[in-house]
Amino acid sequence: MPAFPLKDKVAPIVWRGDRLRVLDQRLLPRRVSYIDCRTAQDVARATAEMALRGAPLIGCAAAYGMALAARRGRRELPEAAAALKAARPTAVNLAHAVDHMLAAARQADGSLARELERQARDYYQADLRANQTMARLGAALLRKKTRVITYCNAGALATSGLGTSLGVIRYAHHLGKVEHVYACETRPYLQGSRLTLWELMNGGVPCTLITDNMAAHMMKLGGIGAIFVGADRIAANADVCNKIGTYGLAILAKYHRIPFYVVAPTSTIDPATPVGDAIPIEERSAAEIVRIQGREIAPKGAAARHFAFDVTPRSLVTAIVTERGIIRPAGARALRRVLS
Amino acid sequence: MPAFPLKDKVAPIVWRGDRLRVLDQRLLPRRVSYIDCRTAQDVARATAEMALRGAPLIGCAAAYGMALAARRGRRELPEAAAALKAARPTAVNLAHAVDHMLAAARQADGSLARELERQARDYYQADLRANQTMARLGAALLRKKTRVITYCNAGALATSGLGTSLGVIRYAHHLGKVEHVYACETRPYLQGSRLTLWELMNGGVPCTLITDNMAAHMMKLGGIGAIFVGADRIAANADVCNKIGTYGLAILAKYHRIPFYVVAPTSTIDPATPVGDAIPIEERSAAEIVRIQGREIAPKGAAARHFAFDVTPRSLVTAIVTERGIIRPAGARALRRVLS
Repeated sequence: MPAFPLKDKVAPIVWRGDRLRVLDQRLLPRRVSYIDCRTAQDVARATAEMALRGAPLIGCAAAYGMALAARRGRRELPEAAAALKAARPTAVNLAHAVDHMLAAARQADGSLARELERQARDYYQADLRANQTMARLGAALLRKKTRVITYCNAGALATSGLGTSLGVIRYAHHLGKVEHVYACETRPYLQGSRLTLWELMNGGVPCTLITDNMAAHMMKLGGIGAIFVGADRIAANADVCNKIGTYGLAILAKYHRIPFYVVAPTSTIDPATPVGDAIPIEERSAAEIVRIQGREIAPKGAAARHFAFDVTPRSLVTAIVTERGIIRPAGARALRRVLS
Repeated sequence: MPAFPLKDKVAPIVWRGDRLRVLDQRLLPRRVSYIDCRTAQDVARATAEMALRGAPLIGCAAAYGMALAARRGRRELPEAAAALKAARPTAVNLAHAVDHMLAAARQADGSLARELERQARDYYQADLRANQTMARLGAALLRKKTRVITYCNAGALATSGLGTSLGVIRYAHHLGKVEHVYACETRPYLQGSRLTLWELMNGGVPCTLITDNMAAHMMKLGGIGAIFVGADRIAANADVCNKIGTYGLAILAKYHRIPFYVVAPTSTIDPATPVGDAIPIEERSAAEIVRIQGREIAPKGAAARHFAFDVTPRSLVTAIVTERGIIRPAGARALRRVLS
């Protein structure tokens, strides 16, 4: 990989030995502010309240959360594990990281605290390496000067650094393969307008914000060569669970015959979930729909639904890019091959 | 039609003889406040700045705008007509109303001011009657207890009263045919959350707000029996131009095999525009995308596109409900039959 900024200046989490500093992404792009998490419960709370988000990142943070629990003794681990796993139900990386740390704890014979700190660092570094590999593999899917659409934020802010789908896009831009990025704002949390635009502008990638409901019109206008999204959980049959709106975007891509790529590390794959519709879809508070950044946008007493994720059937996915190779077409057998 | 509230308590425009009072819909649902328009130019400005919106309503307001110009003399009419027509480019009702008033002015032999006032009232009353007829025809499309999705606001606030697609929904609810309405918030102007929810809640219709990007997931969950939208212009071949996001919603409906109905008066049909892609799509300021109700949601200097409308090809439209009958399947010949 040529010289390329692999980590952004503003890191979403910073390990300080006795605490995990978590960038409060709810305040971006207006303010860069960190929350000090000194316990696993602090990490779980920051995760549940969405100070940090992004499936790979909440996995990395959970690993550090377990390291923080280990500093207080082995007896802390079960409760810490339960709190972290319960923080958000959909992203499987959370359970993946916690289970990995529990297994490491069982095998630790020296200092438990030191061992779990080392394991958390390794988990974080492995995610970073996975992102680099996915960026390389994903960029190979594109020809010159492609205009792409991306959704939500699957960038450096959603991972240990670089990002999944946004890592592919940024690296492909570095190679001259991406000319322009259209970022969907991604209601209700506006990860697209607040975070993805911020990352792309900081990284010098030409980008334009659109509302989610403009994606179909942009595709119709022509010139969109690919769509890249991340994933929160991939079922054993290769159905993809990701941010609410991804499923609709995939249907639009199919209608316009535009390739629809999912970029996610293998830690996102959940062999225990047979099909996408078995994935628990988190429903969050209606208050997050009827208000935008504190401003009421609906009549008092309005009812709202707030599904945080949806499931895209594998039939709508052109390929899944993982750090262990590209799964194309997306299917159960190819998925097993990558995992084995 | 059984006893049914045909006009809401809060009227979007009120004629006062020497001025048109225009409800400032940008402030809803927080505040009910009217703007006094004493000239056609005032009406044009209120239209361009979206104090009022909705294709049939801006047609009615433009008719009154011409009546205001006539009070100042016949020489005022050409300039007034130009200002009103230029206020917004996409909705054909604007040109339809202004041309209708110019024709009336040419034939007026008594008091021009009195004649154009009468014509404007008639235009308004004709729209109200059209809405009542469409409500009756459209409701006949539904069986019992249907759950529907609607988009943007095509209600009493978008017309002379009752509404087009929302008129159908409200009347069908009155008949027990609509059980629940899911209203898409409709970024960037949030007509769905601010206006449609307000009308439905005031009218006692069970309703739930969703973000635009949740529509596909709602359709997948099952139980959605129909989708109803309005229109800003219908081309001669029956392609439908409507609020940005309508096209994507129609694709999602097709994928899920859910009927997609357009409700619009014949004043929305433009025989002079052969196909949908010939309709001028208004692009508005990027500032309306990067801010929500005055709050910045994107990094400073972020680029954004703001298409206000899109075009849904007739192939995605199950039927068009007009006051002169239902066009099904949507096509050029059936459209001509309704117009003749």
